[in-house]
Amino acid sequence: MLNTLDLGRSVSKDDYKKELPELRSRLLEAQRALLTAGISVLVIIEGMDGSGRAQVVNKLHEWLDPRGIQTHTFWKPSDEECERPAYWRYWREMPAAGQIAIFLGGWYRDIVTDAIQDKIKEDNLDARLTPVNDIEHLLAHDRTLILKFWYHLPQDEQEQRLKIEKSTPDDRYSSSKEAIKGREKLTLWAERILRTTDMADAPWFLIEASDMRYRDLATGYSLLKALEKRITNQINQRSEPLPPQEPALPQAQSARVTLLDHVDLQTSINKDEYEDKILKRQNELRELTWKAYSLGISTYLIFEGWDAAGKGGTIRRLTSGIDARLYRVIPYGAPSSHELQHHYLWRFWRQVPRAGRVAIFDRSWYGRVLVERVENLCLPAEWQRAYHEINDFEKQLVNGKNLLLKFWLHISPKEQLRRFEDRQNTPWKNYKITPDDWRNREKRPEYELAVNEMILRTSTEYAPWHIVASEDKNYGRLEVLDTVCAALSARIKAAE
Amino acid sequence: MLNTLDLGRSVSKDDYKKELPELRSRLLEAQRALLTAGISVLVIIEGMDGSGRAQVVNKLHEWLDPRGIQTHTFWKPSDEECERPAYWRYWREMPAAGQIAIFLGGWYRDIVTDAIQDKIKEDNLDARLTPVNDIEHLLAHDRTLILKFWYHLPQDEQEQRLKIEKSTPDDRYSSSKEAIKGREKLTLWAERILRTTDMADAPWFLIEASDMRYRDLATGYSLLKALEKRITNQINQRSEPLPPQEPALPQAQSARVTLLDHVDLQTSINKDEYEDKILKRQNELRELTWKAYSLGISTYLIFEGWDAAGKGGTIRRLTSGIDARLYRVIPYGAPSSHELQHHYLWRFWRQVPRAGRVAIFDRSWYGRVLVERVENLCLPAEWQRAYHEINDFEKQLVNGKNLLLKFWLHISPKEQLRRFEDRQNTPWKNYKITPDDWRNREKRPEYELAVNEMILRTSTEYAPWHIVASEDKNYGRLEVLDTVCAALSARIKAAE
Repeated sequence: MLNTLDLGRSVSKDDYKKELPELRSRLLEAQRALLTAGISVLVIIEGMDGSGRAQVVNKLHEWLDPRGIQTHTFWKPSDEECERPAYWRYWREMPAAGQIAIFLGGWYRDIVTDAIQDKIKEDNLDARLTPVNDIEHLLAHDRTLILKFWYHLPQDEQEQRLKIEKSTPDDRYSSSKEAIKGREKLTLWAERILRTTDMADAPWFLIEASDMRYRDLATGYSLLKALEKRITNQINQRSEPLPPQEPALPQAQSARVTLLDHVDLQTSINKDEYEDKILKRQNELRELTWKAYSLGISTYLIFEGWDAAGKGGTIRRLTSGIDARLYRVIPYGAPSSHELQHHYLWRFWRQVPRAGRVAIFDRSWYGRVLVERVENLCLPAEWQRAYHEINDFEKQLVNGKNLLLKFWLHISPKEQLRRFEDRQNTPWKNYKITPDDWRNREKRPEYELAVNEMILRTSTEYAPWHIVASEDKNYGRLEVLDTVCAALSARIKAAE
Repeated sequence: MLNTLDLGRSVSKDDYKKELPELRSRLLEAQRALLTAGISVLVIIEGMDGSGRAQVVNKLHEWLDPRGIQTHTFWKPSDEECERPAYWRYWREMPAAGQIAIFLGGWYRDIVTDAIQDKIKEDNLDARLTPVNDIEHLLAHDRTLILKFWYHLPQDEQEQRLKIEKSTPDDRYSSSKEAIKGREKLTLWAERILRTTDMADAPWFLIEASDMRYRDLATGYSLLKALEKRITNQINQRSEPLPPQEPALPQAQSARVTLLDHVDLQTSINKDEYEDKILKRQNELRELTWKAYSLGISTYLIFEGWDAAGKGGTIRRLTSGIDARLYRVIPYGAPSSHELQHHYLWRFWRQVPRAGRVAIFDRSWYGRVLVERVENLCLPAEWQRAYHEINDFEKQLVNGKNLLLKFWLHISPKEQLRRFEDRQNTPWKNYKITPDDWRNREKRPEYELAVNEMILRTSTEYAPWHIVASEDKNYGRLEVLDTVCAALSARIKAAE
């Protein structure tokens, strides 16, 4: 989840200068409107050490009217605070109607710290997060707009920045050295915490902090868009509370990089090598799936990708390596009228296999955050809620022992065009191409953003995404088989 | 909470006959409207053994169109079910749009059972209930109306009914003998579970099951009102999702009994005895409060009651027994314009005392579910949400070690009139009576229902309500002092 944030998004000095005046004047305008609308705003700032959380806060103070904004840090509790319930210190600083309060850390800081110090275990994390969700719901139900920002740094960048040891007045938290050492643990726990507390009425914005100009502008724009949306909703008395979760991007192209831009599509494999290796893998897979069957480990393989990226062919290579009694391929198109009578997850729940089987999904529940999002087939609040619902669903499927892998088959627009034309010109491939495919192709930029956010928000420790370079079909197929075999063999080893 | 349900509500045979035709025809009409509106309904039936859960279900089948209603029991999971995630068996039976599904027990049954068998501890209950809240939110967000019913029986009634041992096809659950033995434990755990899962979009209806006619009619009417409200909201595209939580009452007067009808107002005490005893208690209290101070145990005493019931006088008798350095009396009227800029709980959070002090609240956060409810000063969804928020707030105040007691001072309308007139006719008591008091008096029936529901939903193991008969002022005052001394001394003993 967080590691997919290392995209290298940046904003040049020139672009920054161009963006700033409009951002600032619109922020001030929105701030004035808050007062008339009687909306309180609570901004929670969290993230990695060295990511510049305090710098962001100072920037916001610079941009906004200081009479309407206050920042609160929660260092070591005073003795006065220790004598009261834990949340008393936060209630003291709650913003009044029309005000913006920034909590540096707030109720998340202690939870993150306790987790890193092994004071929280995975199975009591929920209990620790219940009061957090309670207070956020309570405030959001009232008239508080809650926005939460997590700042992320790639490892080398963090090491660089933390060379200069900083000291804070709060000695409860880690030193720079410890921060670097505990980085991996922090990431793991942060992901769990963000996942559980990423609610429709209190969303997390995940922001890459390598480039300071990008970091600050992305924060400013995310805040601005959320304020503007909330104010408009208030005026129109609409109750759709949610701002877009993807950080609103400034115009600079370098700030719109997505995960897909990082995929190396030049990779390929020669035919002989491919045929040799794929056969080996298929034999391996046959053995592994029988072994998994005997251990009761179910395998879920989910395939998504661009039209003509080769899902069908890849799935065929997979199934050639599995006994027909053990697997099922389940293709999903638009829901039937019968399926539409139910929750969108219902038609997937129906296909949960018995223990030890392999279920291969040719398209899946991710339609909710891809086609349904881009084509406006559901409300924004619905697809935004879906990330949480899907993570939860997959956690139940994995159930601490099963295997769930998700593949995004990636090809370039150029290669896609070549394959579309090939399909159109080859009579026996003709059925594979429809007017819909051409229409989807035109919406590629919207889909790219949707794919990026999907991978960002649903890559979990228990159900990871794999982006597969499928420009060379054989290369992609082999990579999928490699991944499945490696993961299944690891899961079996863990169970034995 | 549940023990306050022993009200003896009943419906006579005649009244039942009178009510039934309208209830049935409106239910059928609502059921037809569901289909056009595309709303799914999930009814969860839970409660004590012997309360007749299955009888209620059969009654609903009789009243509704059988083509649109299905009941599901979740007995011992099949081997097919054991091989899938735990919630798979529930997803199999989810109602389609326009359908009503009744879950007998559903996801609550195993949790209740595990709790009684000590397989759940208080501090991991939240973790067990997280998936419950998750799935209920997920369904409610979609288009499912979720209604949950808990049926309660007084002890003697339960023992009577369970004399005839019944057997069920599910051998995982308790026999009748065990049910009676485990009654107290069940009540405790049920209260905790109901409290945590009583959500705006999935409310619990608590229904007294002693009188079968009342039980069935109250269920039928609660269901009916909830359906009708949801359908109207759907048509008007309003998003206020919540049906009233107080079981909708049929017209029969005997079905509208409230807790207050059970208070014996004839109790009194003679002056000498009173003066002797109150002095003794005050001295005791002085010692106890110093002791509590030294142990860091805070005391919260909350006073609510009818106008002229004697809150002021009672509080004075209390404070005479406490060192002025240790207590604070905090009176609450209508919120100031400054306070209105914040969440309604904020002005109470501000007054949380330091460790070991005594805070006496002359009126309190219960204004939300009393005056604000009756006078329409907040939306129904807001006061309905408040029960949960208040329970949660008080849990934080008690924090596992402090004392929180809530008193409702009760007098009859007749005695109230006498005191009002006395205030009006005595020049130096004149300031105590305002036109508001007379207006409130006229709304007594609405207030009685509000008080009943307040006590029902916010009597918790950690913060109980005490209804004090104050018809005789001295009697009431002494009872309050008795209660405070006994509770504080018990709390101190537990801490030492």
